[in-house]
Amino acid sequence: MTIQEIRDYLGRFFDAVELVGSGDGPITGPAKIESAEKGEVSFISNEKYIRYLAQTKASLVIVNRSLAVEEFAGGTSFLKVRDPYTAFVFLLQKFAASRTVAKRGIAATAVIGEGVSIGEGVSIGDHVVIGDRCSIGRDVVIGPNAVLFHDVTIGDGSVLFPGVVCYDGTRVGKRAVLHSGCVLGADGFGFAPQADGSYVKIPQMGIVELGDDVEIGSNTTIDRATMGSTVIGNGVKIDNLVQIGHNCVIGDHTVIVSQVGISGSVKIGPKCMIGGQVGFVGHLELAEGIQVAARAGITKSFLQPGTVLRGYPAQPMKEQLKHEAMMRNVGSMKNRIDQLEAELAALKNHL
Amino acid sequence: MTIQEIRDYLGRFFDAVELVGSGDGPITGPAKIESAEKGEVSFISNEKYIRYLAQTKASLVIVNRSLAVEEFAGGTSFLKVRDPYTAFVFLLQKFAASRTVAKRGIAATAVIGEGVSIGEGVSIGDHVVIGDRCSIGRDVVIGPNAVLFHDVTIGDGSVLFPGVVCYDGTRVGKRAVLHSGCVLGADGFGFAPQADGSYVKIPQMGIVELGDDVEIGSNTTIDRATMGSTVIGNGVKIDNLVQIGHNCVIGDHTVIVSQVGISGSVKIGPKCMIGGQVGFVGHLELAEGIQVAARAGITKSFLQPGTVLRGYPAQPMKEQLKHEAMMRNVGSMKNRIDQLEAELAALKNHL
Amino acid sequence: MTIQEIRDYLGRFFDAVELVGSGDGPITGPAKIESAEKGEVSFISNEKYIRYLAQTKASLVIVNRSLAVEEFAGGTSFLKVRDPYTAFVFLLQKFAASRTVAKRGIAATAVIGEGVSIGEGVSIGDHVVIGDRCSIGRDVVIGPNAVLFHDVTIGDGSVLFPGVVCYDGTRVGKRAVLHSGCVLGADGFGFAPQADGSYVKIPQMGIVELGDDVEIGSNTTIDRATMGSTVIGNGVKIDNLVQIGHNCVIGDHTVIVSQVGISGSVKIGPKCMIGGQVGFVGHLELAEGIQVAARAGITKSFLQPGTVLRGYPAQPMKEQLKHEAMMRNVGSMKNRIDQLEAELAALKNHL
Repeated sequence: MTIQEIRDYLGRFFDAVELVGSGDGPITGPAKIESAEKGEVSFISNEKYIRYLAQTKASLVIVNRSLAVEEFAGGTSFLKVRDPYTAFVFLLQKFAASRTVAKRGIAATAVIGEGVSIGEGVSIGDHVVIGDRCSIGRDVVIGPNAVLFHDVTIGDGSVLFPGVVCYDGTRVGKRAVLHSGCVLGADGFGFAPQADGSYVKIPQMGIVELGDDVEIGSNTTIDRATMGSTVIGNGVKIDNLVQIGHNCVIGDHTVIVSQVGISGSVKIGPKCMIGGQVGFVGHLELAEGIQVAARAGITKSFLQPGTVLRGYPAQPMKEQLKHEAMMRNVGSMKNRIDQLEAELAALKNHL
Repeated sequence: MTIQEIRDYLGRFFDAVELVGSGDGPITGPAKIESAEKGEVSFISNEKYIRYLAQTKASLVIVNRSLAVEEFAGGTSFLKVRDPYTAFVFLLQKFAASRTVAKRGIAATAVIGEGVSIGEGVSIGDHVVIGDRCSIGRDVVIGPNAVLFHDVTIGDGSVLFPGVVCYDGTRVGKRAVLHSGCVLGADGFGFAPQADGSYVKIPQMGIVELGDDVEIGSNTTIDRATMGSTVIGNGVKIDNLVQIGHNCVIGDHTVIVSQVGISGSVKIGPKCMIGGQVGFVGHLELAEGIQVAARAGITKSFLQPGTVLRGYPAQPMKEQLKHEAMMRNVGSMKNRIDQLEAELAALKNHL
Repeated sequence: MTIQEIRDYLGRFFDAVELVGSGDGPITGPAKIESAEKGEVSFISNEKYIRYLAQTKASLVIVNRSLAVEEFAGGTSFLKVRDPYTAFVFLLQKFAASRTVAKRGIAATAVIGEGVSIGEGVSIGDHVVIGDRCSIGRDVVIGPNAVLFHDVTIGDGSVLFPGVVCYDGTRVGKRAVLHSGCVLGADGFGFAPQADGSYVKIPQMGIVELGDDVEIGSNTTIDRATMGSTVIGNGVKIDNLVQIGHNCVIGDHTVIVSQVGISGSVKIGPKCMIGGQVGFVGHLELAEGIQVAARAGITKSFLQPGTVLRGYPAQPMKEQLKHEAMMRNVGSMKNRIDQLEAELAALKNHL
């Protein structure tokens, strides 16, 4: 990683990241301020470590915006941020690829098919199986016991945690994070009913395609299309135990919380937020920026961008809240009917 | 595969499949019409390929019902169907066993226990583990990293995708399709509460038994019985992320959609359809041919065959729709009460 | 196992377990009464086997409380219980460790990292991967194809079934049972929304910690904390396909049924019971001993110990049942309004 890349990365978390010094040279890893060597990055958060400023060999030190470090900027460059500790924690994450227990290189116990292209800097763990004609991008990490069928493509910088399974033809974009147990590209659920009550499987010939910067949670399942592709857009984040049926299309930067179930051929627009345990009837469409409250059941399309939905059957928030208030009023309605009957009886009696 | 087997297979999708020619000889794989060799099957869908009819070496060509091919029937046989392209797609699927990344034979890295019987034509993938005394039928495909405990039986022609786990004693019938991550035969959820508030595990001594032609989706879990068997009937199709508790019995040709949860000892009749995200209280029974709408909650038995259920608590469709209409009418009821109160007050005032 | 350990174990299921005889010597396994050898345990349930009492070589026989065995207590000891058959079934379970297909010792195909400590009596199955600095307690069984990342701790006597994945830093207590496909410690679902509608991942730096005697079902997912720990208390029993979000704390001896979804930072007290398919909004708290009916949706905290909750939004049982009764009465309310309108019209007409 270069210092400039680190600056850009921290810039995603902090408003202003100021560079002091030349910013030259590669950074190979993190270290404590008192023991850092050339090529390493460290930080100073606590005042008592300021004394190391003059003597550190670190190539980069992250410091508080208020700290005057200009005089020390020679072999060492500095990045000034609001919260150097948190910045360093974020940075640790960048150097933490080895947490997947896959070492740099290809493990001796991994089984690689024929005609596989493998980029530089990959880590392919023990007992991984990669089918024929797969393409593995640069710096990809594939955790132990993951399986790629034939003709799978994994984009640069993606991380597959142990036990991930990608069926044949699955296309994963760049910088994906696929958590353990997720299954991409298993057969969609399609069966043709026969006259005798049995079913014949409808071959599921399509694939699953993921854009860039997608994260998929543990044990989530995304089915391949019957024909064509089930599409997960760029930047989509999907939680654990979610089901996405065949031929669905999920728009860029949409977020889907745990245990959501999306039936086949649903099309969800970009930048939507789908709460936990929501369910979708098949062949529906949601427009851009729609938010769905947890547990809602979507039974028809909503094409107005930015609508907030709630309830089962789901409806726009205002109507649903009115409906819920009405339901809570049923008790008082009953009391009012009791009262009306009594008054009417008294009136009749009186006449 | 023989030509007769292909004819029977296509007969499951098409009303009439007519054979022209001798129908002799084995078929070893698919090929394009212009390059097909003896022993291969091809198709003609587009008119411009009709010119290959006279010169193809294919042993079998699938053609449109309207195409006169009798004069070409020598070394080549023909099957005439309504839609030769779709027929060929279906047929491709039959030759696609290698998609599981398990090659014919037993991978060198697979670990096979003692006393295991293995049929002809199997493909057992890398890093598969098979326990003692298992029985693996003919033409079974077991994808990489799948695990069978001891005493597991897999019927002829079944396909286990990578990472499937069958606990000890699991019995899988013929032609099963078990998708990645499904777990058959884990312990049922049974614990005896103790006086101090803790629980003691109730040993789960039974097994899971699947009939023939069953398909199980990714990451679905089917628990072993406490004693006896959890039974999945012939032809049952189960989607992804479904939970089936201990001692359940699912009747033949019943279909269960994603994320359904079935508590212990539920008995579902044959030819039922259970929609997505449905939940069942334990120890209930559904009769033959019952259909349950998505999201319903089944809280009691329904013994009338063919009933259509909906809602939570679920009730027969007609009653449920009436209930739902009533709920939608609560607003107008409130208006009518307002009106009644006003009129009654006016009347009293008038008197 | 010693006879005293067997007596203690059976004492968890039966009120009185009486020892007759010396109770000396180790017990190595179960056997039928007619063929049992020294060191083995058997049972007599059926009267016709009583004739073997005089001749058995078993070191221990489990018999009915009513059976006079004192005269046979020499080389053989006896445990008298109410139901010797069930007691023997429970005991079989204790000898059934090999069902996970992991043999005693470390399989040749397992890959063990650096600085791993491994206790006596462990069984580590084929293709298991264990990261650096892990600690594996005594008598732990790790089924084939399971993966432990770096710095994982597994307490004495725990059983991990095939394919379990524990991310880095996960701490599992003693006597845990982790079923196939469960994933402990994957990243919590945390993303910071950016001005352009995209998301930046919030690093999940914490861990998952399980107490002693925890059981986790198949394909259940428990996410690591953002910082600190997601905590599962002692004796907690969790069913299949449950989702537990980052930073949750589940109290001792709480039971969670299948397909429950618990959002981040929920705190559930000890000895609670959570029914199937229940959902929780994040950052809530339930007090000790709360019971939640299946399918309920918890939208706020309940701090009164022992409350029974039901419905969505969940409320105490009494209020919820009243609410449900009211809903069922809406039809009769409509009839009463019809009647009131008719009577009022008639009255007006009459005046």
